Amino acid sequence: MKVALLGHGVVGRGVDQILSSRDLGVEVTRILELPGRLDDGRMTSDYEDILGDGQIELVVECMGGLEPAHGYILSALAAGKSVVTSNKAVVAAYLDEFASQARFSRASLLIEATCGGGVPWIASIEKARRIDRISSIGGIMNGTTNFIVDAMEREGAEFADVLARAQELGYAERDPSADIDGIDVRNKTAIAASVAFGCACRTDIPTSGIRNLTKADLDLLASRGLSLRLLGRAVQEGGRFAASVEPVVLGHRALEANVPGNFNLLSLVGETVGELGFYGQGAGSLPTGNAMVQDILDFRDGRRPSYDLSADLAYDPGLLRGDYLLRSGLAPEGSEEWAPGVSLLRGLSAEEARATLDRVLGADPTSFMAVLDARG
Amino acid sequence: MKVALLGHGVVGRGVDQILSSRDLGVEVTRILELPGRLDDGRMTSDYEDILGDGQIELVVECMGGLEPAHGYILSALAAGKSVVTSNKAVVAAYLDEFASQARFSRASLLIEATCGGGVPWIASIEKARRIDRISSIGGIMNGTTNFIVDAMEREGAEFADVLARAQELGYAERDPSADIDGIDVRNKTAIAASVAFGCACRTDIPTSGIRNLTKADLDLLASRGLSLRLLGRAVQEGGRFAASVEPVVLGHRALEANVPGNFNLLSLVGETVGELGFYGQGAGSLPTGNAMVQDILDFRDGRRPSYDLSADLAYDPGLLRGDYLLRSGLAPEGSEEWAPGVSLLRGLSAEEARATLDRVLGADPTSFMAVLDARG
Repeated sequence: MKVALLGHGVVGRGVDQILSSRDLGVEVTRILELPGRLDDGRMTSDYEDILGDGQIELVVECMGGLEPAHGYILSALAAGKSVVTSNKAVVAAYLDEFASQARFSRASLLIEATCGGGVPWIASIEKARRIDRISSIGGIMNGTTNFIVDAMEREGAEFADVLARAQELGYAERDPSADIDGIDVRNKTAIAASVAFGCACRTDIPTSGIRNLTKADLDLLASRGLSLRLLGRAVQEGGRFAASVEPVVLGHRALEANVPGNFNLLSLVGETVGELGFYGQGAGSLPTGNAMVQDILDFRDGRRPSYDLSADLAYDPGLLRGDYLLRSGLAPEGSEEWAPGVSLLRGLSAEEARATLDRVLGADPTSFMAVLDARG
Repeated sequence: MKVALLGHGVVGRGVDQILSSRDLGVEVTRILELPGRLDDGRMTSDYEDILGDGQIELVVECMGGLEPAHGYILSALAAGKSVVTSNKAVVAAYLDEFASQARFSRASLLIEATCGGGVPWIASIEKARRIDRISSIGGIMNGTTNFIVDAMEREGAEFADVLARAQELGYAERDPSADIDGIDVRNKTAIAASVAFGCACRTDIPTSGIRNLTKADLDLLASRGLSLRLLGRAVQEGGRFAASVEPVVLGHRALEANVPGNFNLLSLVGETVGELGFYGQGAGSLPTGNAMVQDILDFRDGRRPSYDLSADLAYDPGLLRGDYLLRSGLAPEGSEEWAPGVSLLRGLSAEEARATLDRVLGADPTSFMAVLDARG
């Protein structure tokens, strides 16, 4: 089977290396790269060379970013070529359009590597759906923020120090906003919810990160036997759905509270199978490359995922509701004191909580909020 | 697609119910049952009716036990029919023979439900092997014993009281030996190691259970920040392999130490994907039925697993080595005192540890042993 790579950066080279060092019956015959970087006989900077190559069945997108990735994926699908991608931003934004084009062109879209690195979560959600209605998905979806929170907790370190170390180790980008503000988790939550519920999950879900988390916050929680993790969550019930990304307070013995370093823990709940969890390295060129090669081999072996996102689920933010802790110079009216400087706000939806946080951030930009008793 | 069930007990009825209540394109046309229990038009007590039915592609064995399950599976495979089974005892004992017959007859053997209930562990091991050499597999493989240890730890209860409760809840059999002595885990470890390493893993691996575990043992560990779980483990290295089943002492923050109730946590380590873990209910008719139906649907969708167990790996028990804690009235020569009545034995292989335990059990039948610092 002949495939083309779009991009030959860290992930693209990882995929190329795994494929070329093993006898898998898959050959990379074309690689799209920038005009100044064509240092390999397979490389071209003209995408038409790939679209027009009738021998190429599969296009493996390793570029990242919204454009030109969006246009490249669409035109590959329109040309009847199937697509493997690890690009969560473009898939979260355009999954509905891609899925529709793929069905029309009888091509496939394979997106395992968009969520959870080498963890086979998307394929497991698809597999569970063959039998079960899935009522919820969620978990630790971002290795960078888990590395930060875990190190802060274990070492009693401050956010800025651990972030700097994560950047040195290559776990965090120079601009870490997408990770620490929850954008990356938001994209993954939207993708996984869309696959799990068969609806086009919106990406403008309530999203809070860990930018303002302090050692003192974690010390206070620890003194009460509690821990904290950044979780993406989505639920469906009675024709409605909701999703959120936010820091969640957990008991010390919760499985999520014990996920170390840059690992992910992703789960689903199905009718007959109950709760299923999947644990592994959520990022890194080898796990991500591994996930892309697994999708390539699934395609080689005849798997042809097709996403039907036509379920007419109403967005109902009230489905995700909990008691919230807010550490802020400003105590909102009607809140109880949970600890000095920390208010308890009962029974907010994730959307109401995010709106409250936005209000107090104006007065105290260091404010931090987390859901204490996550329900739904 | 037409399938036959062998047995219509709890698991068989679960499979029947999942298949008949969903539009999956799979029809149960024959069910083998005992002569006195033929209360359904599909039932027969004559296996020839099923073997001779050319329309049946797949035989789903839900009987358990070694015979007649062994003979029934072999003759189905010999007749060119593929087999789905959850019977870990018969698969652990005869996987090599079944795999060889299946290859010869161009039939398939699907064994997801033998390990980890609804957790897709075997399929994940197979999938990982497409790319990676797997260096180890292991984890919490028995829900009954995990329920017991978890409840003893959380509630400070004694073994016998929790076992009685597990029996009331239906988590433990009236004769719980297969669970609490590690036999069930031994079978699953042998099956998973065979699939992971491509060798016929022997079943006479060193096996210790939790029959003699006391509240005082767990209290002592807890006082030092430690916990305990019954783990199956297997490793391969340089053309050799080893496997064991034994209680393993873990730090309080180890993921395994925080697996609650009757859940399993199964893992593998691969070259490029790193550590992957899978979490879910390890037993129960719905999760087990779910795993069998997933295998049936995989077969419907064209998956044809074939096990090549020809890897010539030498059994080398020295690959699994650690420091052991022994609580016994008898302190073996050369051991250090770890706590009053508890000896520390350094650098034993799992086989040497089991032999030591056998020796002291003669003098003190309440002796209990666990590996403190599991390596390999």
